[in-house]
This record gives sequence, C-alpha cells and structure tokens, in this order.
Amino acid sequence: MSEYAEKYRGYITFWYFDRKAGRIIPEKSFAIEAPPYWQDLCDAGKLESYGFAFCNSFNSEMATGKPLGSPNPFFEVGASQNDMDYLHIVNWKKAEEVVARGGAKEVVGIGGFKIKVIPLDVAAKEKILVFTPEPKSPHSVDVSPDGKWIVVGGKLDTHVTVYSIQKIKDAIEKGKFEGKDKFGVPIIAFKDAVEAQVPIGLGPLHTVFDNRGFAYTSVFIESVVAKWKIGEWKLYEKLPVHYNIGHIAAAEGDTVPPDGKWVVALNKWSIDRFRPVGPLHPQNFQLIDISGDKMKLVYDMPIPLGEPHYAQIIKADKLKPWTVYPDVGWDLIRQSKSPYATTLGKEKIERKGKTVYVYATAIRSHFTPEIIEVEQGDKVVMYITNVERAREATHGFALGGYNINISIEPGETGVVEFVADKPGVFPFYCSEFCSALHLEMA
Amino acid sequence: MSEYAEKYRGYITFWYFDRKAGRIIPEKSFAIEAPPYWQDLCDAGKLESYGFAFCNSFNSEMATGKPLGSPNPFFEVGASQNDMDYLHIVNWKKAEEVVARGGAKEVVGIGGFKIKVIPLDVAAKEKILVFTPEPKSPHSVDVSPDGKWIVVGGKLDTHVTVYSIQKIKDAIEKGKFEGKDKFGVPIIAFKDAVEAQVPIGLGPLHTVFDNRGFAYTSVFIESVVAKWKIGEWKLYEKLPVHYNIGHIAAAEGDTVPPDGKWVVALNKWSIDRFRPVGPLHPQNFQLIDISGDKMKLVYDMPIPLGEPHYAQIIKADKLKPWTVYPDVGWDLIRQSKSPYATTLGKEKIERKGKTVYVYATAIRSHFTPEIIEVEQGDKVVMYITNVERAREATHGFALGGYNINISIEPGETGVVEFVADKPGVFPFYCSEFCSALHLEMA
Repeated sequence: MSEYAEKYRGYITFWYFDRKAGRIIPEKSFAIEAPPYWQDLCDAGKLESYGFAFCNSFNSEMATGKPLGSPNPFFEVGASQNDMDYLHIVNWKKAEEVVARGGAKEVVGIGGFKIKVIPLDVAAKEKILVFTPEPKSPHSVDVSPDGKWIVVGGKLDTHVTVYSIQKIKDAIEKGKFEGKDKFGVPIIAFKDAVEAQVPIGLGPLHTVFDNRGFAYTSVFIESVVAKWKIGEWKLYEKLPVHYNIGHIAAAEGDTVPPDGKWVVALNKWSIDRFRPVGPLHPQNFQLIDISGDKMKLVYDMPIPLGEPHYAQIIKADKLKPWTVYPDVGWDLIRQSKSPYATTLGKEKIERKGKTVYVYATAIRSHFTPEIIEVEQGDKVVMYITNVERAREATHGFALGGYNINISIEPGETGVVEFVADKPGVFPFYCSEFCSALHLEMA
Repeated sequence: MSEYAEKYRGYITFWYFDRKAGRIIPEKSFAIEAPPYWQDLCDAGKLESYGFAFCNSFNSEMATGKPLGSPNPFFEVGASQNDMDYLHIVNWKKAEEVVARGGAKEVVGIGGFKIKVIPLDVAAKEKILVFTPEPKSPHSVDVSPDGKWIVVGGKLDTHVTVYSIQKIKDAIEKGKFEGKDKFGVPIIAFKDAVEAQVPIGLGPLHTVFDNRGFAYTSVFIESVVAKWKIGEWKLYEKLPVHYNIGHIAAAEGDTVPPDGKWVVALNKWSIDRFRPVGPLHPQNFQLIDISGDKMKLVYDMPIPLGEPHYAQIIKADKLKPWTVYPDVGWDLIRQSKSPYATTLGKEKIERKGKTVYVYATAIRSHFTPEIIEVEQGDKVVMYITNVERAREATHGFALGGYNINISIEPGETGVVEFVADKPGVFPFYCSEFCSALHLEMA
C-alpha cells in the first residue's frame, strides 16, 4: 500500500452484450486503464453524447487508509481533502477502434479471467480518457434524455452540477486543456465544461428524468426529492421522503423517452414507518406520482434488504418471459440444450474412476433413479432434468446432510456435485415423496 | 436398503425450549424411536389432550424405491398400497418420566450431535407410543382448540377423520388394542378411536380453527377451503381458491383461543393471477375474511418462494422485538456479550502461528483497522463489532474475491473466517467508504 500510486490502477470496463444470445461476451469486451482513484458510478451517453461514457471518481488524494497505530487519516477524511475530484470522460467509440487495431494488451485477472485493456498512457494520448473537475464526494453522473447534459451530484455540495457535451467535445477537439493529472490524463477546465450549477439543497446524490424536461434529484441530508427544470436550471419543488433517500428511480427514466408518471424514492431508513422486526430494519421505498404540477407521495413499501443501490423501472409489456424453458434439458449457464440432459427411460448411472455421474429425471412425484449406491469418498455429479412441460411444475431437490438445495423449473437440467464423505443413507427430496441415496461404506 | 426394516428407524424428537434464554437446550431434549415408516407432521395436544402429541406417518409398507432397472415400484406407488397408515400417538409426559429415571440411551448422530433416545421396545411396552389407523396419504394432524379432537386429512380420501382423545385414553387405560404392528407397537382399532368422518371433498390436507367452533380444511384437488363445524361434523361451505391450496393458516388458529377473523390459503400455483416472471412462478397467498356467515376472499399476494409448507399468524403486539442489540458486542449464537467484542480505541491484531485474529470496530463510515497486512496462506479470523447504538445503523462487510458478505446490526459482533490464499490487495467495504486488506506475498 506504500506504493499505491505506482503499483495500482483502476479499470473502466465495457462489456459487449450479445442481444441475440442474451449474454455478455468477455472476448469482445475491453477495459480502459485509469489512475488509482476510486472510480464510482458511470452512465452512458446517448443521442448527442453517444459514443461517450461518464464516470465519477473520488479519492483523487489516493489516501490509503489507517492501519492500527498509524498517523494516516481514516479513509473518509483522507479521501475528502481536495475540493474537486475528477469526472472521467471516456470516448469508448474511439477506444473500440484502438482495440480493433491491436492497441490493447491482454490482462489476466484473479481466477484466470482474461480481458483486453487499453493502457493508461495510450488512453491519455488518444484522448480516450479525459478529466474535468467535479464537486467533492460525487455520488452520481446521469445523462439527460436528450444526451446534451451530464448531471453530477456531489454529496458534500449543495448543487447539482451540469456539464455540456458540446462544450466537452469542443474542448477535446481544440485541445483546450488546463493541464494533466500526475498520470498524464488531460484535464478540461471546470469553466470550459460546466453549463450550470443548480442549488437544490444539502447532499444531492442521484438524478432521474421525466418526459416534460424535469429532473428529480435525491437529496440525502435533507431527505427530499428535488424537482428542477433542465434549461431553466431552476428548482421547482422539494418533497420530503421518509427517511434519508439514497438512490431514486423514474419510470424508464434512463432512456431517451422517459415514461414520466412515477418516481420511486429508495430510502435508507424507515424509523416509524413500519412495525419493528428486530435490529435489521426494513428499508422504505416510496412511490411518488409525478404526473401533476406537484409531486404526490402515494405509497410506502418495506424492503427487506439493506440499502438498495440501484433500481430500474421499465414497462412490463416489454418483458416476454418464458413460462417454461424452451426445451427439455435447458442449461441455464449455456442458455441452450444441456449436453447432460436426460429423457424419461434414458436415465443412467456411470462411474469413471472415483466419480459417479447420475443422469436423472424428475417428474411428479418421483426422481429416476430413486436409489443411487456409491462408495464412501466418491465424488457424485448429478444432472437432474425436470421433464415436465406444465407451467409451474417446479421440482425441488434437497440432499439431507450435504447442504444441497436446488429448484429445478420445468425443462431445466439442474446440476449438483458433492463428495459422498458420510456413511449412511441420505434422503433426497422432491415435493411430495422422497427417494434415498445409499452410500456404502468402502 | 435391502435391510431397511431391520436397520433403520424413525425418531420423533421433543425439543426443550428454554423460554428465558430464548433457545432450545439439546441436553434437556429427547427423542422416541419409531418404526421406519415415514413420520410426517405432528401437533401437540392441549387442555384435555395435554401431555400427548400426534404424528402422521406414511409408507407403512416400508417401500424402498426403485433403483435403475429394478422391478420395485416407484416410491409413491409402493408407499400407497395399504388402505391405512398409522397415526402415531405419543404420551410425551410419560416419556419425560422414563427419561428422568434413566430409561433413555444416548445416541450420537451425524456431526457428533448427541441426544437421549427412548428405544422402540421401551416406548411400545410403556405405551409411550401407540398407533391407530388413519386414511392413506395423511397430510396433517391438527388438534382442536379445546384439545378434544384430533383431525387428520388424508389426501387420497374424501373425508377429514376426527379422533377423540377421550376414546384414545380409554382404550390405552383398558389395554384395548386390536394387536401390534411388526415392531411391537400396540394398535387401537380405528372404530375405538374415531369420532367422525366429515365428507368435505377431494384431497383434504390441513385444518385450522376459529373461535366459533368452525374448522377450515384445505382441499387440494378441488382447490377450495372447506368450512365445517366441530361437534355437528357437518360441512357448511366451500370457497374456491386459486389454485391448488396446500397449507392453510388461521389467526392464532393453533392456540386454545383462536382469533377468528382471518384465514390465509397458501396456494401452490398462481396461473393467471400475476404477470409471468419466468419459469419459476410466484405462489399465491389468499386472504380470507372468516368473520361473517360466508367466507370472503379479499386479497391475493404473490410469494417468491416455492410452495410454502408452514405459516403461523400471531398478533403483532405479542412481539417485542429489539430495535438494536441489548449490548455492544452482541453474539447472535451465544445470545450474550461476545468474548470477542471490541470497543473504539481497543482494536487489535494478534497473530498466533499461521492465524491472524483481528478485533475490529465498525462505525459510520469506517472500519478500524482499515488496513490488515497478512502473509499469503494465513488464516484470518475477524471479529467486527458494530459500535453504533442508533437504530438502523447497520454496517455491511464484504470482502472482494472471497465471497464473504455479512450484515452487522447495531451492537452486533460479526465473525468472518477465511484463508488468505490469493496474493494482492482485496478491498473490504462498508456502505460509503472502503478499507483495503493487504495480503503480502510470502
């Protein structure tokens, strides 16, 4: 950690999403090396800002924290010394070209994961990565529906800060920088990138948008939603929420055409809103009707999980979920027919050395086979195909004593692996009846 | 499995619950050995039946299932050959006396868990365990609020079967048995124990009670709640639910004075009730107003988990939950102050051989220490005390790369253990700021 600035780097990764396959393709993805500041939330440009991405950072001080007995300040003190951190502006379209012509190097990460990375010096030289100052402790960067404005909420500020993509593009094109950071990344002067600072209150965090030109910012310390207008850069209204709002979501609010009817405040505390249920309290989601002139709080909903940090609202009719899997023997990882799928009557048990492979089926109300005999110490790999085609004919599989519990939906091939290291008979369960697994002592 | 009847036994376990300590005391608990039928749900007697417990069983056939290529029938066929299974009647008061005078032997189970067990021959001889026939595929046994009646729902029957505790006690007292099962357990003749069979429909499962003498039985195949009257043994009404009801809960319905206003139907399927969300469908809880002459279905609630098998409704004001833990350094397992608790300023790191013990604190917004340096290969044990006293000031602790995530509520001392087997720096996280764990290469 004493060589933090020299030896550590951040990465901003761009994942290639194959829409047809419905999954990320790591081989077509790439990352951009960044200084070892702490990169936080990002947003993608759209329309006028398409081809760019914007990421917050904090700890430009590169504070390394406080070991026991050290005079170092605590992280949150050390990381809040500078008045400004750096908004990271990434030209990912240009990065894509650089990767295509071989300008990235392959990096192997923890667990052997490989990814192409554009080195920091290349990113800086090609202006793939440029900075502009942003108010301290930034919590969000949100691009407006028309793509023209980039909104940053700095928790230790009282404004949201709005940057202009046109000004940013102009500065990059004209090479108009006020200098470089210590890693060589060009910095656009704050005044050359900023369009407005809107005074909305203490602790602005995240901003979402409607279809009438309004923006809605969560304001943490005041516990309000602040509604303000794009272009006018003027505060319209503050609505109290309960309590300590963190994140916020608007109906299709991150798209080019937001829906505009609803905002949900994701609050961090819920004192006095719900019955106490123990030391881990529910959080509180509050539904706000934004369709009229004034915001209207219409519903409280307790949430069991601690401090949700992200939510998106999309129209339900855009989802066309499967009600059963498309094929019997579906493999959830491969998103295709499993090579280990089995049909009724084709079940088998195969031994290869000390490993026993079981190709099983599940149908109401039994597994086939119902008994599997193995030697103590064998590794057992079970491929269990739920051969049902009826909606909701889910079968559970639980193995007593081995902490194995899976849910196998109609058509799915579930996989469990364990070492049969306990002598005795271990039942495995479906919903109504049970089968038994027999482990013979060696 | 070929020696199933000879080598295997069931256990019915009576857990001693220490109300003051708020926990089970295994040393004061005991079990009763039973034949290797499949014991299922039990209910405790109350008032007139206090001192007894009642358990269903199935598979009195002792079917052992179908290995691949075997002529055995599948379990659900093999286990449904007999017209009747055995209702297990347990005199746990007498069992307690037998245990007290040393009539139980200590049995060591999987994982070294020890429990006192009354052997089957003793249980049979002392009439601690007696049987009476019950209709096939029994799914529940429920004792009425006055303790006089024991209600059994047999899924392959069309009645609920009601037994009289008075008749059972008389038979036991007079030694009036029709014989013994093959394990020597005395059997009371069905006609000597039964009071009534109420025809309520196809597939009766579970029964709950109100405060006006009515019983409510879930009827699986018909997908209805059947309301019938105790004493009159007469069906009053059937209310369709959606769909395939399994379990059922009434407000304080398992107590001596049921509340009587609400029943919840725990349904297994929810086709057409909610938007499809993928192959794992929600289940459907339906709220039924039972306060009037006719039952009224008033609300549908989707449940994300598959097929809930148990629920209880109690009045919320009976719960007095802690909102923070009673002491800083609370140990959830011990339910007392943790010997590993730490206070602010007393944090320390201790090495014992290859194990590093970290006594840490968490307070908004940092851990102390923020940096821990260990050798690769060390075992690290962290005791993290959340020293906050404010309600809801929960701190998360996550260790990147090690799949460690815990939630530490105000006052709690959380424990994590891992072997530091990866070189590099692994950040650990609280909500707003982060600390870093440094693993030095050896």
